[in-house]
Amino acid sequence: MIIPDTPRVTRIVREVWKPLTVLFVWDVLVTVVYFVLPFKAPALPLTIFGSALALFLGFRATSAYQRWWEGRILWGAMINASRSFSRAITAFMDDRRDGVVPLKRTLVQRQIAYVHALRCALRRQQQCPELAQYLDASAMAEVEERTNRPNAVLDGTGRRIAAAQRIGYLDTIQQSRIEAVLIDIANAQGGMERLKNTPLPMQYRFFPALFTRIFCVLLPIGLVETLGMATPVGSTIAGLMFLAILQIGDDLVDPFANDVHDVPMSAMCRTIEIDLLQSIGDAAPAPLGEVKGVLW
Amino acid sequence: MIIPDTPRVTRIVREVWKPLTVLFVWDVLVTVVYFVLPFKAPALPLTIFGSALALFLGFRATSAYQRWWEGRILWGAMINASRSFSRAITAFMDDRRDGVVPLKRTLVQRQIAYVHALRCALRRQQQCPELAQYLDASAMAEVEERTNRPNAVLDGTGRRIAAAQRIGYLDTIQQSRIEAVLIDIANAQGGMERLKNTPLPMQYRFFPALFTRIFCVLLPIGLVETLGMATPVGSTIAGLMFLAILQIGDDLVDPFANDVHDVPMSAMCRTIEIDLLQSIGDAAPAPLGEVKGVLW
Amino acid sequence: MIIPDTPRVTRIVREVWKPLTVLFVWDVLVTVVYFVLPFKAPALPLTIFGSALALFLGFRATSAYQRWWEGRILWGAMINASRSFSRAITAFMDDRRDGVVPLKRTLVQRQIAYVHALRCALRRQQQCPELAQYLDASAMAEVEERTNRPNAVLDGTGRRIAAAQRIGYLDTIQQSRIEAVLIDIANAQGGMERLKNTPLPMQYRFFPALFTRIFCVLLPIGLVETLGMATPVGSTIAGLMFLAILQIGDDLVDPFANDVHDVPMSAMCRTIEIDLLQSIGDAAPAPLGEVKGVLW
Amino acid sequence: MIIPDTPRVTRIVREVWKPLTVLFVWDVLVTVVYFVLPFKAPALPLTIFGSALALFLGFRATSAYQRWWEGRILWGAMINASRSFSRAITAFMDDRRDGVVPLKRTLVQRQIAYVHALRCALRRQQQCPELAQYLDASAMAEVEERTNRPNAVLDGTGRRIAAAQRIGYLDTIQQSRIEAVLIDIANAQGGMERLKNTPLPMQYRFFPALFTRIFCVLLPIGLVETLGMATPVGSTIAGLMFLAILQIGDDLVDPFANDVHDVPMSAMCRTIEIDLLQSIGDAAPAPLGEVKGVLW
Amino acid sequence: MIIPDTPRVTRIVREVWKPLTVLFVWDVLVTVVYFVLPFKAPALPLTIFGSALALFLGFRATSAYQRWWEGRILWGAMINASRSFSRAITAFMDDRRDGVVPLKRTLVQRQIAYVHALRCALRRQQQCPELAQYLDASAMAEVEERTNRPNAVLDGTGRRIAAAQRIGYLDTIQQSRIEAVLIDIANAQGGMERLKNTPLPMQYRFFPALFTRIFCVLLPIGLVETLGMATPVGSTIAGLMFLAILQIGDDLVDPFANDVHDVPMSAMCRTIEIDLLQSIGDAAPAPLGEVKGVLW
Repeated sequence: MIIPDTPRVTRIVREVWKPLTVLFVWDVLVTVVYFVLPFKAPALPLTIFGSALALFLGFRATSAYQRWWEGRILWGAMINASRSFSRAITAFMDDRRDGVVPLKRTLVQRQIAYVHALRCALRRQQQCPELAQYLDASAMAEVEERTNRPNAVLDGTGRRIAAAQRIGYLDTIQQSRIEAVLIDIANAQGGMERLKNTPLPMQYRFFPALFTRIFCVLLPIGLVETLGMATPVGSTIAGLMFLAILQIGDDLVDPFANDVHDVPMSAMCRTIEIDLLQSIGDAAPAPLGEVKGVLW
Repeated sequence: MIIPDTPRVTRIVREVWKPLTVLFVWDVLVTVVYFVLPFKAPALPLTIFGSALALFLGFRATSAYQRWWEGRILWGAMINASRSFSRAITAFMDDRRDGVVPLKRTLVQRQIAYVHALRCALRRQQQCPELAQYLDASAMAEVEERTNRPNAVLDGTGRRIAAAQRIGYLDTIQQSRIEAVLIDIANAQGGMERLKNTPLPMQYRFFPALFTRIFCVLLPIGLVETLGMATPVGSTIAGLMFLAILQIGDDLVDPFANDVHDVPMSAMCRTIEIDLLQSIGDAAPAPLGEVKGVLW
Repeated sequence: MIIPDTPRVTRIVREVWKPLTVLFVWDVLVTVVYFVLPFKAPALPLTIFGSALALFLGFRATSAYQRWWEGRILWGAMINASRSFSRAITAFMDDRRDGVVPLKRTLVQRQIAYVHALRCALRRQQQCPELAQYLDASAMAEVEERTNRPNAVLDGTGRRIAAAQRIGYLDTIQQSRIEAVLIDIANAQGGMERLKNTPLPMQYRFFPALFTRIFCVLLPIGLVETLGMATPVGSTIAGLMFLAILQIGDDLVDPFANDVHDVPMSAMCRTIEIDLLQSIGDAAPAPLGEVKGVLW
Repeated sequence: MIIPDTPRVTRIVREVWKPLTVLFVWDVLVTVVYFVLPFKAPALPLTIFGSALALFLGFRATSAYQRWWEGRILWGAMINASRSFSRAITAFMDDRRDGVVPLKRTLVQRQIAYVHALRCALRRQQQCPELAQYLDASAMAEVEERTNRPNAVLDGTGRRIAAAQRIGYLDTIQQSRIEAVLIDIANAQGGMERLKNTPLPMQYRFFPALFTRIFCVLLPIGLVETLGMATPVGSTIAGLMFLAILQIGDDLVDPFANDVHDVPMSAMCRTIEIDLLQSIGDAAPAPLGEVKGVLW
Repeated sequence: MIIPDTPRVTRIVREVWKPLTVLFVWDVLVTVVYFVLPFKAPALPLTIFGSALALFLGFRATSAYQRWWEGRILWGAMINASRSFSRAITAFMDDRRDGVVPLKRTLVQRQIAYVHALRCALRRQQQCPELAQYLDASAMAEVEERTNRPNAVLDGTGRRIAAAQRIGYLDTIQQSRIEAVLIDIANAQGGMERLKNTPLPMQYRFFPALFTRIFCVLLPIGLVETLGMATPVGSTIAGLMFLAILQIGDDLVDPFANDVHDVPMSAMCRTIEIDLLQSIGDAAPAPLGEVKGVLW
């Protein structure tokens, strides 16, 4: 996620110069041709093109933003549920009983391992060093043999809570309440996997890009008759506006795409790590900050 | 669901060549007639037509996408609830008691059978081989005599959990928690049946298609006076844009229609199958991949 | 609900011929007057009229569809809750105890009676034959003296479940779980009554109809100067498009209005009837089919 | 809430005549001046004004309607929760025990008192005669000393249910289920207070009204050059359309504003009163009807 | 939050005079240059610019308002949950038992401390005097060492409720019900932190501001040919409308930004304080009123 309100000039220049140059060169070319070897430019129905294009781009920008924001909401729900999990675990079990304190630490660490495993899975990263940091060897083995590793961590957490109930640390009412939190966690995970595995339908990826480009190509031809020498300016600005809307859609449509426009998953995993470690009295690392204006 | 960002040229050509050809031939015809036996083309109020049409098409494309995405969300909820079901089943019952291990396997297999039964019902497929694979003969008999087969599987699962409670494997608190998961499953099923059985109202299917076609017919007549020789190009591009929006609506409006634009139900059933089988330690099949760019 | 994708020509002709004729006659009249006793038609600001009208009609069509779809969602929720009710009832109580099997039948039949009572109440039908079919005389008497009959059935169901708990067929945990399903049912009923009793605000019913008609009257006057002899065609098509959007709003805005555009309540009540009767092993009637292309 | 589909002519005339007259007089004035002392009317960019204005008015009308409809939904939720409260109260406690029947009556009457107290609070009415009707003197005293009177009633209800649990009329599971209904009630109340206390942001109240008026002033100046003598008609109709959209926003934006466009709170309180009194076998008053086309 | 319907003239002048002056001076300048040293102003495609800009601004204004309203909804949910927390606490525990009355006071005061801590955290205020007012020294120490102070208060509340359960003031069913309220509270907090920590994506902050300014610069150039001397008026009004929409987005997009457009957090914290103190019979401060038309 890009943090500053006004993005760095370098980032903008880097992202924009290529389409801008292509657009401008084409617009100049059309204008030059028009004046050098005069042709009768047709009065293309640009308003009709524009309103059809607006339908595509308006829909696409809105739904891209909704996907991005839903990704953020789901990670927010994961933060909330992780805190509720740790609050229930630490409150429900009585520290004065043997074995409760280490069990609490294990369960809370498993939840930290879980969110890191989920982040790595969403970013399609095979290596996830935090997993080994918070899970012991036998727990790692349990997880490694499953296709969906975060889900394996959650299943194991559920079994350990059931064991605690059988010992008598919890009764089934408290177990049922914690299970309700695990369901919230599973629902958030499922929602993230949905966003990751189901891109915007192909039609909304392909046609807006195609039609925006056709529109930019036709724009100077349709304008040169009335704009004359001002065609490159007018046509480039108009084209740039439509290309910007198209680009925003591309940037936001996949909130877990492992690029600078991502929902800041690493930072949110760190937030969970801090909250949960502090809730059992352990030392916690510092929050993640932005790197070159980007929070990962 | 079509996977690649840029669809295969063959698919596009196959889908688009027919309307494109018809459109282009008509536009050329109008232009030729205009120049050969000159008539005074009326300045049709294309902007007014266009804005009324945009109302129709904008609404239709939005609601078609919402239906498609709701179908995907409901299947995602089914994945989540299936995992929560299996996590609760495996955690709540104590493996050391007689009969618990086979009961867990039965219950988890019933849930796999359930999602396959649901997928077949949504695709209106009478044959559903996975059903017999995961249900034994008596369970199959129970299911076959009911009109709504997935619901029959779920009812049977509820009865088996109640039986487990009477034996003492579960108490009523744990039963009640699992029943809450069954309600989530039933709600997801009901939502899918709603999308399947209730198409977009007839008016939104019929009028947009009618008016888009009328618009495409009138377009070259209204443009030829100002566009002249460029009419076929301008008119075909504009017509194609509106037809594309119309087509997207058709593609997405029925997410369980058994065609390439479907929500990928087979793949999601397989995901559930893998997660659930692995959660009880059984071997699982490989995930489904795309076939010629389509994930079913 | 109208089923076929392409509506019958007879239905369309019946619905459309009157406004179409009025529109066409008016458009021809204006054109004839323009050519016979020439007047200088003013260049009415049709684009400004059109964009204001589009605001009204776009809002109205969207909110009408949302009301219709919410009506359908609420009936879907009723189907889901009815199934969950029957699943919980049949699973929680032990058939081997005296009186349980008839009690299950009574409770499930009460739920069927409930949905029929609700359907009749929404359609403002005083007679509801299915009520007497599924309720015995004393239960009917209980219901008849209440203003809100479906709610009376639900109250009685709640009291019978409480009685079962007092006998010991259920414990309070199971009672509480079933009560949660009754709350879902009550919420769905309340939502339906809200849609029925609260029409779209008067302003959104009156002004769009008024302004669309004014627009259609002014349309040929504003167009005749530029369109000439083509005025009747251009003006009638544009007017028809706006009238169609207006009509869609009228059709869908009241989903329980007892006309062909209704949410298919009878069919959904039958679905519930089949699912619930089969869940207790009783014979069930066949699903309702469409009648002349309409599913009621 | 205004009931008839077509509002009374008197109401419309009363609401519309003032802006209509001002608008028409201004439009005539501009036209007369144009013809009497001819000036060159500038071709104002009315389309650009219009599209900016449409952004404001479209947003405002949509969010006003959403506020109104949310107000209605929240009162619907209050009806549902009140019914569920009374169903749970009457079902869970056993009439055969001493003191249960009067307690049920007290609790149900408290809920009726609650909704009336809430209605009076939302309408900022200090007097609320129904409160004294359904609460005895000591309960009234409890309520009067609190700033938020409905919340005080709810707190007292919660304490009385806890007392019933301590006597043994209910167990804590049943208490917990009823508490969940009280939470639904508290959430509905909080939502209504939110709508009442948080108007639409000032910017959306001020700017649309300002810009619509500026637009109406400029409209005849911009149109007179092309419309000529028809200016008053064309300009008044266009102006009236925009003013109507503005007015709809004003009417609906505050659903508890104590005017004719209110959500019908009195009628819904009466609905709750009838349902709850009948549920404990008491006589109930008749439903409220409309008065001069308005349901309060 | 600004309270009066019509904002003070001073506020408007203060906010608007700068862009208004710049706009007007530029528009006059262009007009003067046009008449003094005549140039052929190009007929810039203002309609195409305008419709692309409308896409940006419409999206931005809508999503800014949604963020602001979501912030308000979340604080409303916090009010509701705080009341439900206090109602459950005061009802569930029996005052006749030793230690219950002081414990109730402690728990209710902790919740008041919690909302103040949350408000200070959202406004990034390090000092939060109300925290020390409602927490004793040891509780303060517990909170100070945690990164997320409000979450620390909530964790401590959860532990104190668990202690009450171990003593026997509550059973685990009542504890579980209160824990469900704590989860609602944690979810509301998480939602607020999401809005605070995740601004609108950079693209939607940067591009609308850029393109609106470019549009205002080009506006008089594109209009002067047709508007002539009226350019400054027409161009300034149109520019002001677009700038106003842009400004509304800026004002509302961050509902916890510590400026006059904030959701009124201080007033809502005071509302919670009053309701909770009165619910345990303590004296409460007066509600916060507006200061110079602003409710903080």
